[in-house]
Amino acid sequence: MPGLLLGDVFPNFEAETTTGKIKFHDYLGDSWGILFSHPRDYTPVCTTELGRAAKLSCEFSRRSVKMIGLSIDSLEEHHGWTKDILAYNREESGLPFPIIADSHRELAVSLGMLDPDEKDKDGLPLTARCVFIIGPDKRLKLSLLYPATTGRNFDEILRVIDSLQLTAQNRVATPVDWQPGDRVMVPPNMPEEEAAALFPFGVYTKELPSGKRYLRYTPHPP
Amino acid sequence: MPGLLLGDVFPNFEAETTTGKIKFHDYLGDSWGILFSHPRDYTPVCTTELGRAAKLSCEFSRRSVKMIGLSIDSLEEHHGWTKDILAYNREESGLPFPIIADSHRELAVSLGMLDPDEKDKDGLPLTARCVFIIGPDKRLKLSLLYPATTGRNFDEILRVIDSLQLTAQNRVATPVDWQPGDRVMVPPNMPEEEAAALFPFGVYTKELPSGKRYLRYTPHPP
Repeated sequence: MPGLLLGDVFPNFEAETTTGKIKFHDYLGDSWGILFSHPRDYTPVCTTELGRAAKLSCEFSRRSVKMIGLSIDSLEEHHGWTKDILAYNREESGLPFPIIADSHRELAVSLGMLDPDEKDKDGLPLTARCVFIIGPDKRLKLSLLYPATTGRNFDEILRVIDSLQLTAQNRVATPVDWQPGDRVMVPPNMPEEEAAALFPFGVYTKELPSGKRYLRYTPHPP
Repeated sequence: MPGLLLGDVFPNFEAETTTGKIKFHDYLGDSWGILFSHPRDYTPVCTTELGRAAKLSCEFSRRSVKMIGLSIDSLEEHHGWTKDILAYNREESGLPFPIIADSHRELAVSLGMLDPDEKDKDGLPLTARCVFIIGPDKRLKLSLLYPATTGRNFDEILRVIDSLQLTAQNRVATPVDWQPGDRVMVPPNMPEEEAAALFPFGVYTKELPSGKRYLRYTPHPP
């Protein structure tokens, strides 16, 4: 059964995109990456999603995250549909990221991205709404797999990127429903003396019935 | 490579849980289901997550979604840790959902839930923060795969359940960043006459450069 797991090296595939042929790892370079698939060009939810992604492209580039879309449509369809996306979302410049034309469904199958409930006129399944977030080490850091009927939430996508990047650079983790700026958690296996030295803004330890001292907060790292 | 894809029938596994032995499909019955894994009992982010899940249990049961947790810890650890979760989150009754004790990592491996970046003292990987949402037909409808460092967002989990249930019952889809009550999209392959009959509150069609009439909204179904 195909499908990518956390920590897997993302395949270094070659693909045709709206900005030319790419090799995926070269495209990413030293950046983080986000690959998002959509079911079909010229469909409504996808037009709202790619429009929102275009509007947020500055937020992604500010975080050094290279964006790339994918569907099973042709380059010609991608180019034609792009005009609709831009008009609908009142974007005056071009689409700020490429879209892969996976018209033979090779990537869709090998990356486990198909939605069996959504079929084209030949009865073949379309791509689902997948998100893969890839670290600078080319490994999968986080993924979402939504069906065609459910548009994604780009605020949540930016939130998890902020958490992934913060926790890659600092020995902390982010609690449930965390937002940037909120306090963060100290790793449970870090000795108290080390935590005190590492977090000069202080560590707050919550007393719990077990008597174990693992629930420790510290302010958001500077 | 293991891992569950959209549309796969969720395995009907047997497991030890904090409320007794279960067979998963029997546990779900005719309900929707959410299975969420966490890396380890007695760790900070997990305590915040399971506490929030407990607080939201009425929201899940209102939507007829049966909840179940999972980690690679033992039943004894689950029971001891539950007291911490309840105390931390000021919950007076017990935890309103069972937790699976997958101490041999059988489910963690077969469902592709491990996070290779997080290891126990023997060097074995812990479970990641997975979410599987399962329909009444026992098939996978949506999944999230977050690493141990990044706590989940339960508002997003409830949002996607609302979308999945709305679109299972009505021939509509939900656009990017949709929230319950917002307008929804008409499927692109539905003829105009059928849409007019099916959506008595009206269908708004956006004019686009392609001239194709696929971007159609209608108010949230009653």
